[in-house]
Amino acid sequence: MRDCVLKGSPCPCLAWTDSPPRPRPDPRPLAPASVTLSQDALQSKTTVRLSPAFERDRLWLNGAEEDTSSARLQVCLRTLRERAKSQAAARGGAPPAHLDWRMHICSYNNFPTAAGLASSASGYACLVVAVAKALGVEMAMEDLSTIARQGSGSACRSLFGGFVGWSVGTRADGEDSRAYQIADERHWPELECLILVASARKKDVSSTSGMQTSMATSELLAHRAAVIVPRRMEEMTRAIRARDFAAFARLTMQDSNQFHAVCLDTYPPISYMTDVSRAVVHVVTRFNDVVGAAAGPVVAYTFDAGPNAVLYLERRHLPRLLRALLHYFPPPAGAAAPDYLADARGVLKAALADPAVAEPFATAEPELQGAIRLDPYVNGLTAIMHAGVGDGPRVLDASESLLGPDGLPKAA
Amino acid sequence: MRDCVLKGSPCPCLAWTDSPPRPRPDPRPLAPASVTLSQDALQSKTTVRLSPAFERDRLWLNGAEEDTSSARLQVCLRTLRERAKSQAAARGGAPPAHLDWRMHICSYNNFPTAAGLASSASGYACLVVAVAKALGVEMAMEDLSTIARQGSGSACRSLFGGFVGWSVGTRADGEDSRAYQIADERHWPELECLILVASARKKDVSSTSGMQTSMATSELLAHRAAVIVPRRMEEMTRAIRARDFAAFARLTMQDSNQFHAVCLDTYPPISYMTDVSRAVVHVVTRFNDVVGAAAGPVVAYTFDAGPNAVLYLERRHLPRLLRALLHYFPPPAGAAAPDYLADARGVLKAALADPAVAEPFATAEPELQGAIRLDPYVNGLTAIMHAGVGDGPRVLDASESLLGPDGLPKAA
Repeated sequence: MRDCVLKGSPCPCLAWTDSPPRPRPDPRPLAPASVTLSQDALQSKTTVRLSPAFERDRLWLNGAEEDTSSARLQVCLRTLRERAKSQAAARGGAPPAHLDWRMHICSYNNFPTAAGLASSASGYACLVVAVAKALGVEMAMEDLSTIARQGSGSACRSLFGGFVGWSVGTRADGEDSRAYQIADERHWPELECLILVASARKKDVSSTSGMQTSMATSELLAHRAAVIVPRRMEEMTRAIRARDFAAFARLTMQDSNQFHAVCLDTYPPISYMTDVSRAVVHVVTRFNDVVGAAAGPVVAYTFDAGPNAVLYLERRHLPRLLRALLHYFPPPAGAAAPDYLADARGVLKAALADPAVAEPFATAEPELQGAIRLDPYVNGLTAIMHAGVGDGPRVLDASESLLGPDGLPKAA
Repeated sequence: MRDCVLKGSPCPCLAWTDSPPRPRPDPRPLAPASVTLSQDALQSKTTVRLSPAFERDRLWLNGAEEDTSSARLQVCLRTLRERAKSQAAARGGAPPAHLDWRMHICSYNNFPTAAGLASSASGYACLVVAVAKALGVEMAMEDLSTIARQGSGSACRSLFGGFVGWSVGTRADGEDSRAYQIADERHWPELECLILVASARKKDVSSTSGMQTSMATSELLAHRAAVIVPRRMEEMTRAIRARDFAAFARLTMQDSNQFHAVCLDTYPPISYMTDVSRAVVHVVTRFNDVVGAAAGPVVAYTFDAGPNAVLYLERRHLPRLLRALLHYFPPPAGAAAPDYLADARGVLKAALADPAVAEPFATAEPELQGAIRLDPYVNGLTAIMHAGVGDGPRVLDASESLLGPDGLPKAA
């Protein structure tokens, strides 16, 4: 029996393009960027076990057994097993027996699946690394990213901590479509991230099938991919390296908007953002008009394939922004603020205790109120989560295995 | 005293581009199309009076006096007065005294102003024609459209009945930016129009200032204007001439989506569509999947600069569509269906009396329900209005004047 336990975390986009499943009508160098979030906020945890006693590959996701026949999962497992065998053959001698054993995979996300929080990116990244470790495959993360990409496009980015780029490459077989690290998780220590959870409903359209329809029908997407994304990706890399928040924020917001514009230009149109998403955009825009009037935006929003907002900002702006968010997006009736705030590191609590912003928003911020002019959006959000910039997948101790001695998920 | 009383009506877009105020960064042949709606549904009514007793130009809009100093109004009035004088000079003799009199203008819209129902298009078209008539200016409608365009871009189209094109032209001074009729209001007698009124709130962003920001910041707009709109305009003209509803519908929906995509690509982004707009898109999309499965879409949506949907369809599909709309967008609590339906010609009432669809939607349309799968959107719409394709501005009898003998608006 070989066990491998890992955890990893998702990677909201900075500069967008979802992985176009191949064959694509017009392969071009699309190069999105992302930030990998800290695992104390959002995490996937996966155990992979190989055993001669198992009769077939099995998969449990958040406690429920799932079908393993999906083409996306199968291609990942097949590729990794083939790689393990070819590496064993290259070393000489008989291939290890465990390469022919079946595997049980058990994975949990501590955040809603398929609600636009990059759950499949996080989950597939963790799964691919765990399977590779269990099989004893030796591969650089960049190479492993080409396999993870086949499970879920954006999974290739969650293999790295910090700031991650993705070079889609030009080869028709996708072998040169890989992620790479722009800067690690220690590069920009002041950078914080808030996730405004708008809804935990399952999406109507999965982001993968949505992007396929966009590739086929949006005339704006081809122009964006050919002309706009490559230039923005260079600008984004420069902004990250220079820790130039204003440039980073403008690019992040413009590129999120353009991604959702292309979704809307799809036929029939795809809309991930909702009224509450738009209210968040409004509050951030006006907050920047006031607080960032001199030096440029101090908060950036980005929306993945769902209505939740991910906000980036430097820590010094957190007290004022958090007060404004709690005013315009109050906790649902009955929920007290501490439950509404998901604050694994205590960063939000510390921000709220800042004596410089101790007064309630309604009395302390007339200028912001005058600029924002929005009635509080009651029941718009279900939670405000804090995360920092995080590291890549971590191998855990076998004692954290999600599978019991019988090879089945442990009782929750 | 010279009085001129007119009425006109708005023109929801088929293929989009709002008038870019000049100077524009990159003048190109943008050529949007529209349908002018019947005046029994939506209308502007305007009286213009010239009198030696008036001390200054004055304007009342929906009963409230407005400032006349706006650059857009002033350029229309000045241009028309200059034209009247040059025409008088060309005829020889002393210029008529009334050309130096001040004017009072009184205008009513029978529909919400600035809520995305093309109120300024309808109002400015009516105003410009009324001022021209009052001054005795003799101009072809095409030439008058270049003046109306300076008041409100889309006003140039409301000067014509039926199906209207707009050739933006290439001259920097805009003199060749004019509207023209593609086909008159008798061309496609089966075509009906529904206006789904989502909200009567004033917009946050006026469509004129929104388009200026889009011109300055959206990289997708330039591509759309240069490459996509000219081709679509040709296709739209062909579809209208051939009364090819499926082609007309696809182009209308794709171009509405793309217009709103460009709004979202603006920085900061502009969102006119709301959750209820998106629910309408969803219902129409799935209705077409079922009813138009064989021959292509049978209903088209388009959204102007607001959340209201304008739907086009041929009359034979009205009974089924209207049943579905009343099911998914029920009248607000307390409002009975007849009040909810604005039905000047009795077309909706006749559709609901169609014996082929006499059963309630919930029992009669399992296939549609299975495709649409949406909980009824309570309080999503405030009214469903019917309109047909209408004619251009009409001169009314002086007895319909909106101004009393004292030159002030008559009591409502």
